[in-house]
Amino acid sequence: MENLLLSVDPYMRELMDAGWEIGEPLRYGRAVGRVLESRSPEFAPGDLVAHSEGWSTHAVVAPGRAGVRTVRPPAGIPLSAYLSVLGGTGLTAYVGIREILRLQAGESVYISAAAGAVGSVAGQIAKVLGAGRVIGSAGSAAKVAYLTGELGFDAAFDHHDGPVPELLAAAAPDGIDAALEGVGGDHLEAAIGVTREFGRIAWVGAISQYNNPAAPPAAPRNLYAVSDRSIHLRGYQVRHHLHLRPEAEEWLVPHLLAGRITSRETVVDGFDRVVDAFLGVLRGENTGKMLVRVAGE
Amino acid sequence: MENLLLSVDPYMRELMDAGWEIGEPLRYGRAVGRVLESRSPEFAPGDLVAHSEGWSTHAVVAPGRAGVRTVRPPAGIPLSAYLSVLGGTGLTAYVGIREILRLQAGESVYISAAAGAVGSVAGQIAKVLGAGRVIGSAGSAAKVAYLTGELGFDAAFDHHDGPVPELLAAAAPDGIDAALEGVGGDHLEAAIGVTREFGRIAWVGAISQYNNPAAPPAAPRNLYAVSDRSIHLRGYQVRHHLHLRPEAEEWLVPHLLAGRITSRETVVDGFDRVVDAFLGVLRGENTGKMLVRVAGE
Repeated sequence: MENLLLSVDPYMRELMDAGWEIGEPLRYGRAVGRVLESRSPEFAPGDLVAHSEGWSTHAVVAPGRAGVRTVRPPAGIPLSAYLSVLGGTGLTAYVGIREILRLQAGESVYISAAAGAVGSVAGQIAKVLGAGRVIGSAGSAAKVAYLTGELGFDAAFDHHDGPVPELLAAAAPDGIDAALEGVGGDHLEAAIGVTREFGRIAWVGAISQYNNPAAPPAAPRNLYAVSDRSIHLRGYQVRHHLHLRPEAEEWLVPHLLAGRITSRETVVDGFDRVVDAFLGVLRGENTGKMLVRVAGE
Repeated sequence: MENLLLSVDPYMRELMDAGWEIGEPLRYGRAVGRVLESRSPEFAPGDLVAHSEGWSTHAVVAPGRAGVRTVRPPAGIPLSAYLSVLGGTGLTAYVGIREILRLQAGESVYISAAAGAVGSVAGQIAKVLGAGRVIGSAGSAAKVAYLTGELGFDAAFDHHDGPVPELLAAAAPDGIDAALEGVGGDHLEAAIGVTREFGRIAWVGAISQYNNPAAPPAAPRNLYAVSDRSIHLRGYQVRHHLHLRPEAEEWLVPHLLAGRITSRETVVDGFDRVVDAFLGVLRGENTGKMLVRVAGE
């Protein structure tokens, strides 16, 4: 098939340390392509297929492999949504808020990297669920404005404006019931600091550490609060929850069509810019999902 | 009432930093006494009553206060059991293994401070439940022998014999499903290190840090594994689970009478030795529950 859109995601940096060599093609990475030729009755030429075969202009895809599915965007849903809000990052947000945190109406929640592909969807899901207060952190004043403006967050801060634990404590003076944390280091410390007794923290990665895995991790100095305040700190990986994809899509699509949940994408054109786009994600240059357009739809 | 037995427990050190002044009486601490005089229909002179009124030779106890209950030891159960295996420490073990970890038959479990009042009961509960492999750490060769001998642990090590993460990794070459951790620092790091994907860690304090709360805590350097391996790290405090006391007592008493669970106590005689006994617990000098006998039964 001919790939149309490629996804670049922080987790790929981590996988690069697990056996990949510079110069080799990258054999993982979410993408959507159009079938050119098929020897499977499940795919016909022209079908749009999401898969995880990595960064390439063309791919050979076997039906039944993990992540392989035909997508049929309803009117009003762009194809790019299947790599963002209806793709792996949107599912990560859905699983975190609904399956791991089981966020209830009225509860307050903190979301780190909230202007990113996972955080932006997570915050909007929380608002739709009637969360009491949704607080986000991001890496620029423009992103903060995006969170409290377009996305309807109740509070947000730029993590460059001071020690993150202090900024979050100021934004959440009454503490929080739940947190979705994907940055690690001082962001996790900040989340632990404001989590109330019996609160929950869903921990889905540590983008701050992916690019220097040998450096000593900045472990939260207040970790003991997890014991003292009976906090649940629960790690999760979206790949173990792929069975929730149909449920998530069914739940998300009506909210997308109604505009209650929006998906912003940063699209870079041209296969030769995939590495730049990926490095941009690691530097936090994207707002929402970062995608690379390889061929026109 | 006249107190007969007093309990000395590590958690009291932590409470001392929360508003207590040297020279004041200690107003918390579990004890069992005999009623001398009563103005309540719930207590008659001669009744044995467990309470939490602290370190004193006599106490005034109000019915209905947290921790206050009449105890009626069945034949074969000593009064001291109501401050150990049937008291707060036994309940802490029961809650940790059954309510927080929900340990299943065949699962392996690591228990730190396993020769102490909580750990020794927790390990025996795990064995009764059919745990696949029960591994304990302790602070002397004699305690290790007690664990693998009398208590039936499958493996145990003296944490002085090397870096704890290495000792535990050697004792649990196939990893563990669950851990009951109450030491903190390198013991928590060791537990995280061997916990398998989707494993659970119940974290019930950090005795290693109680006596120097101002020192920087030794945060586990491998904390990121909690995210990476989808581990549940869950803090708990027994005081939030007191409703399980009748269930725990009903479950434990038959095993105690049958000898499947044993309770070893270190009893120090004389009220004037309560501080020594307490300091001994913080130094790990006790095997099993440390108690102070204040008056003869």
